[in-house]
Amino acid sequence: MRRVAVVGVGCTKVGELWDKSLKDLVVESATKALDDAGIDNIDVVYVGNALAQILQNQSNLGSLVADCLGFEGIPAISVEAADASGSLAFHEAYKAVKFGWADKVLVVGVEKMSDSSSEEVSKALMTFEDQDYVAFTGITQAGIHALLLKFYMEKFGVKHEDIAMFAVEAHKKASKNPYAQFRNLIKLEDIFRSPVVADPLRLLEHTTLADGSASLILCPLEEAKKLKLQPIEVLASSTATDRFFLHERADMLTFNSTVKAAEKAFKEAKISRDQIDVVETHDSSTILGVISLEDLGFVEKGKGANFVVEGNITIDGRLPTNTMGGLKGRGHPLGATGVYQLVEVVWQLRGEAGENQVKNVKVGLTHTVGGVGSFASVNILGCLG
Amino acid sequence: MRRVAVVGVGCTKVGELWDKSLKDLVVESATKALDDAGIDNIDVVYVGNALAQILQNQSNLGSLVADCLGFEGIPAISVEAADASGSLAFHEAYKAVKFGWADKVLVVGVEKMSDSSSEEVSKALMTFEDQDYVAFTGITQAGIHALLLKFYMEKFGVKHEDIAMFAVEAHKKASKNPYAQFRNLIKLEDIFRSPVVADPLRLLEHTTLADGSASLILCPLEEAKKLKLQPIEVLASSTATDRFFLHERADMLTFNSTVKAAEKAFKEAKISRDQIDVVETHDSSTILGVISLEDLGFVEKGKGANFVVEGNITIDGRLPTNTMGGLKGRGHPLGATGVYQLVEVVWQLRGEAGENQVKNVKVGLTHTVGGVGSFASVNILGCLG
Repeated sequence: MRRVAVVGVGCTKVGELWDKSLKDLVVESATKALDDAGIDNIDVVYVGNALAQILQNQSNLGSLVADCLGFEGIPAISVEAADASGSLAFHEAYKAVKFGWADKVLVVGVEKMSDSSSEEVSKALMTFEDQDYVAFTGITQAGIHALLLKFYMEKFGVKHEDIAMFAVEAHKKASKNPYAQFRNLIKLEDIFRSPVVADPLRLLEHTTLADGSASLILCPLEEAKKLKLQPIEVLASSTATDRFFLHERADMLTFNSTVKAAEKAFKEAKISRDQIDVVETHDSSTILGVISLEDLGFVEKGKGANFVVEGNITIDGRLPTNTMGGLKGRGHPLGATGVYQLVEVVWQLRGEAGENQVKNVKVGLTHTVGGVGSFASVNILGCLG
Repeated sequence: MRRVAVVGVGCTKVGELWDKSLKDLVVESATKALDDAGIDNIDVVYVGNALAQILQNQSNLGSLVADCLGFEGIPAISVEAADASGSLAFHEAYKAVKFGWADKVLVVGVEKMSDSSSEEVSKALMTFEDQDYVAFTGITQAGIHALLLKFYMEKFGVKHEDIAMFAVEAHKKASKNPYAQFRNLIKLEDIFRSPVVADPLRLLEHTTLADGSASLILCPLEEAKKLKLQPIEVLASSTATDRFFLHERADMLTFNSTVKAAEKAFKEAKISRDQIDVVETHDSSTILGVISLEDLGFVEKGKGANFVVEGNITIDGRLPTNTMGGLKGRGHPLGATGVYQLVEVVWQLRGEAGENQVKNVKVGLTHTVGGVGSFASVNILGCLG
């Protein structure tokens, strides 16, 4: 087994990018990552995308991406795990390098949502859940999140305002990230003046349509040392699943996929939670942000919102979280999101995070959820020297 | 690196299975494979499926399949490479065992097409090709195959009747395969009495809608020897891509993805083409069957049809090909097809192929194509003792 490093990263701005196609987005982010690494060839490409088959009528993305980038001929693997597709692509690529199958691997996450209507996207997002037992009820993703929010407030006696603070924090950081979708600051009052999308969840608590692509290059750490930039080591990468149906889980407010993936990742990295300097977690809604911090083991169940209110997740807080705006602020281009998180942690580790730079970052963690927790991925990156 | 073995296989009948859902198909084939191997737990599952997102509104198949089978919690990876999705799932699973990441791996290929109309499926099949430059013209997969057929006949001066013999042979073998979709014998006259689906391609030269699932279990060869059945070794597994756009290839009648994947596979297996006893190849239409045999290196370019006419691909011929009916006869449930091919080669190697058993099979090869050759996979299995 070899030690694995990230040697190049790149991404597009996230937003409603009307003038860019799926292919344009891929080429932009992958070219930036290749330039960043200072290399011009790769052995294999892993592609993470969630909904191109529905939203762009485009399957077979592995071969398409390889060709777009001028790498036709190489093996190309396209994976899908709902909105954790990018993280799954990274995980598979990591194993390919770690276990010695490939030396230079490109990971591309991409999603193009804004060419479709909100109705089309809402329906497409429900393909992440079971069609026979969940989607047929007509519930939306926001609807499921709203139920979790209500249940959480009820069970732990937590105020909605405290949970909603997750979004206020997200916009604060996104406002200083040039790649973010939402650079405006919001206040609690703004959230509670915004429409209820599914009672009690407010519009400003949830992500929306976004286009974007993020890419990175992996290679063995030993090789990485010969390249121009400081290599960032992948200390761990793990994935796990949970019961597919929320209603069949013992505790709907705990995503066992996250719990298991985190356990495995901390064990693999031989690192404790105290050593984590920055976290990028899956706040596709405020409540999912809170649940995620708890399931990752950073805070006790039921105390996640309070942890945020106490200022722990700010850039100079105890656990700087979603430092470039998270899914809510940077934006959530589904299959690209997991790779964005990794790119952002690499920036933090390299000291390239601009106005959002956290001081003395040695270790960072990313966490992505597929569907409502049926899949989760946890990665730990570090520059321990 | 470890040697890898197939220790259990299973599949459903292929056909229009109105009373079975996508999940029913998965459970049936996976349960058979687990029973065949005599095991009841796995470390990870790889899922190959092409079009569930469009045809069943179902994404996130990795987690869904893990849960359906009672394996919730384990890592689950869903991959897609058009109609080679099952082969890609196998390839990724093979690497996981070979390089030591996992010990007991389940591979599931599944597709459910017949609940949708032919028009819906025709449109969905075109998601395998580029939307901006190919699909927008309105051409269908059968249309592309028809152009290749016409070009091939013209370039090599080959009679349509000779190429069409591929389908006659397919039905002959399928007639004796209890899992096959088409168990009727057809004659050349039947083909040329069937409608032209895209000039000059006839209805009986092309695959149609099919439902089905095939599964297999991989583990290290050393572990396999402790299980109840004769282990079948995976001697090689490789994939490659080609230019995504047919019109940008130097030679439209040669799929470089196949050529490259075959080269790599023969090198990895340290085996020559003479040693191959059975071949399962990608005859989604008669012309693709012919081109595939040539690209795999079994026969000179332009001579593939003649090779079939001379009787070489029959059960007792020089190179028994598509011994259980191939895509045309057994049926082509897209994402499941690659796994069906592997299951069938395992049957041949174990001597379990019934009336279609080839004598003294020591080595078998499978070949699957994604889209019109933008992706290809070649696997070599053997029981060399």
